[in-house]
Amino acid sequence: MSAIADAASSAPARETVRVALGERAYDIVIGRGVAAEAGARAAALGARAVALVTDDTVAELHAEAVRNGVAAAGLRAELVTVPSGEGSKSYATLARVCDAILAQRIERGDLVLALGGGVVGDLAGFAAAIVRRGVRFVQMPTTLLAQVDSSVGGKTGINSAHGKNLVGAFHQPSLVLADTALLDTLCERELRAGYAEIVKYGLIDDAAFFAWCEANGAAVLAGGPERERAVAHSCRAKAAIVARDEREEGDRALLNLGHTFAHALERLAHYDPSILVHGEAVAAGLALAFRFSAMLGLCAPADAERVERHLAATGLPTTLQAFAGLSPDPERLLDAMAQDKKVVAGQLTFILARGVGNSFIAKGVDVAAVRTFLARECAGGGR
Amino acid sequence: MSAIADAASSAPARETVRVALGERAYDIVIGRGVAAEAGARAAALGARAVALVTDDTVAELHAEAVRNGVAAAGLRAELVTVPSGEGSKSYATLARVCDAILAQRIERGDLVLALGGGVVGDLAGFAAAIVRRGVRFVQMPTTLLAQVDSSVGGKTGINSAHGKNLVGAFHQPSLVLADTALLDTLCERELRAGYAEIVKYGLIDDAAFFAWCEANGAAVLAGGPERERAVAHSCRAKAAIVARDEREEGDRALLNLGHTFAHALERLAHYDPSILVHGEAVAAGLALAFRFSAMLGLCAPADAERVERHLAATGLPTTLQAFAGLSPDPERLLDAMAQDKKVVAGQLTFILARGVGNSFIAKGVDVAAVRTFLARECAGGGR
Repeated sequence: MSAIADAASSAPARETVRVALGERAYDIVIGRGVAAEAGARAAALGARAVALVTDDTVAELHAEAVRNGVAAAGLRAELVTVPSGEGSKSYATLARVCDAILAQRIERGDLVLALGGGVVGDLAGFAAAIVRRGVRFVQMPTTLLAQVDSSVGGKTGINSAHGKNLVGAFHQPSLVLADTALLDTLCERELRAGYAEIVKYGLIDDAAFFAWCEANGAAVLAGGPERERAVAHSCRAKAAIVARDEREEGDRALLNLGHTFAHALERLAHYDPSILVHGEAVAAGLALAFRFSAMLGLCAPADAERVERHLAATGLPTTLQAFAGLSPDPERLLDAMAQDKKVVAGQLTFILARGVGNSFIAKGVDVAAVRTFLARECAGGGR
Repeated sequence: MSAIADAASSAPARETVRVALGERAYDIVIGRGVAAEAGARAAALGARAVALVTDDTVAELHAEAVRNGVAAAGLRAELVTVPSGEGSKSYATLARVCDAILAQRIERGDLVLALGGGVVGDLAGFAAAIVRRGVRFVQMPTTLLAQVDSSVGGKTGINSAHGKNLVGAFHQPSLVLADTALLDTLCERELRAGYAEIVKYGLIDDAAFFAWCEANGAAVLAGGPERERAVAHSCRAKAAIVARDEREEGDRALLNLGHTFAHALERLAHYDPSILVHGEAVAAGLALAFRFSAMLGLCAPADAERVERHLAATGLPTTLQAFAGLSPDPERLLDAMAQDKKVVAGQLTFILARGVGNSFIAKGVDVAAVRTFLARECAGGGR
């Protein structure tokens, strides 16, 4: 709480990224201390009440400060707290959050405020999308991963027994407040996991940014101005893609680089954070996507090695063997991939690469090639 | 009407109403026997598979024929059956339907087909809105009420403990197939209930249609070409309003004529169909809205009496006393209204009328006047 107030009083450097979506356009405000502005900004959006959705962990750290800030701006503000962890992206918790928002008599002019990581943002954003057939919401991401990825772009949802994020809505926030001071409470593992999504933007279409990451990755993790720069650059990259293709009918799928592998790994691990967290699965998924591209002759093996080298240097996993407690098996991985939502007419779609910063959507990838690749990786022969 | 003239030819009489919503535009096809075209039309929409959502009652009557028709067109088609009744518009049934659609591997190009009344349409449409963040769906309404109201316009949703339809989405169907032959299996009570929504279109803004109803209402209920004409006219009326205001930011609220009262009655009756069904509550709500308008000096008492007379002549309820087992109480009714979703900034919004065919949105209606009116109605002094 004091960190938020102190940072705000010193008027720190900040950056605003606009997500250009016509009448659904919104700002991402990035900087140390921006959380202290939540009340004033909610009032400026015309809200009279705010349902503040958060999880147990964040509730202890930041929720009271944010609630007090909103109340100080003259708005009614009440908490809805869910258990921390992926398990909250469930039908049951969604129902509880929707009912809690309704119990707070949040109306169409009011706001749901998602204060937390990707789980809280996805869950609260989805609840906002469906309560009264849509109320507005504000994202206040508290993890690096949420600040650079999940809080931007309007994808919301929960998990089904059939897979991750299979039930949800496109519902853009009215504002994203990414307070980088809140990242100071993160453990190193969470920071690293979020960093994997930052690296992804370089790999998709920005070789210069990947090179910047190679030079500055350690500084991003250690904190300091490189971190704000990386968050802002990532948000700009994501905003540009989302503005081109809000509903993932084309280019937006590029953001799934590494994610077909990552989701399969998460399914095999039953989303157990003692085995892996999302960003770690993405790191391995990025390495796998490049090695698969190399195996298919699409990119130079040296590019795959370069990707792997940088991720490993950051302490991120790059192989199936990196996850203690996971028993990777080609057929089980393939099954898990086939249930991912990027299946179109029964064929597998991957994001592959012709090199660093040169990724593309590869539709109808031959299942036999995937099987060969996975068998090699499961046998530890990928490197 | 040209479609009525077509009845003379060998082809079955049918009429197509276009809902003009730009890239979300779709057709409502009305006529005897159009259900038989479900397979060909699903194939024409490019679907490879159809999840056919229905309820126990409709499953016995029509579901196999529709499924066989879809399968005969070369599409994979499986049933998802939910219990009949309002109780299925619940979080738990929604979760079950979403999981069943996912289990059938329905992809973005495929279809959910809602075969049933308003409950099935609202539930299956909402499931389609959120599975994979939106798959397409087709409405095949099997009740008169669904054919003239709920299947058109894209409002989908479920009920919460806090009220009816408080959780949902705007999700337009890709097609509505209103087979009037399916209405032959309805009991008279269900037909009458649907008829209340037909009368509503006349009362909103079409005095000539209300006069047509006065002359032809009995024929609509008895069956014959008047029924198709009434369904088509109602769909055109609703389509015109929805095209003007898809997300109920203005005019569309006119469709709620009678519904603030109706929803309150339904809440008081705990949605128990042995006390009332939706269309009956709407009939009473229409009469109440006109009597309230008369009490406020907005419309002539003779107009309120005329509305009441036609509804009563059709066998529909027009007073709070008409519902055996309901104990109407002014404060409980007011509480129920205050939780309805048409509350904006704490004030009550009603649809009121200056006469037959001359309804308007009345914002900020004085709660004291509502209380006085309800006290009079509860005391049986409304007529």
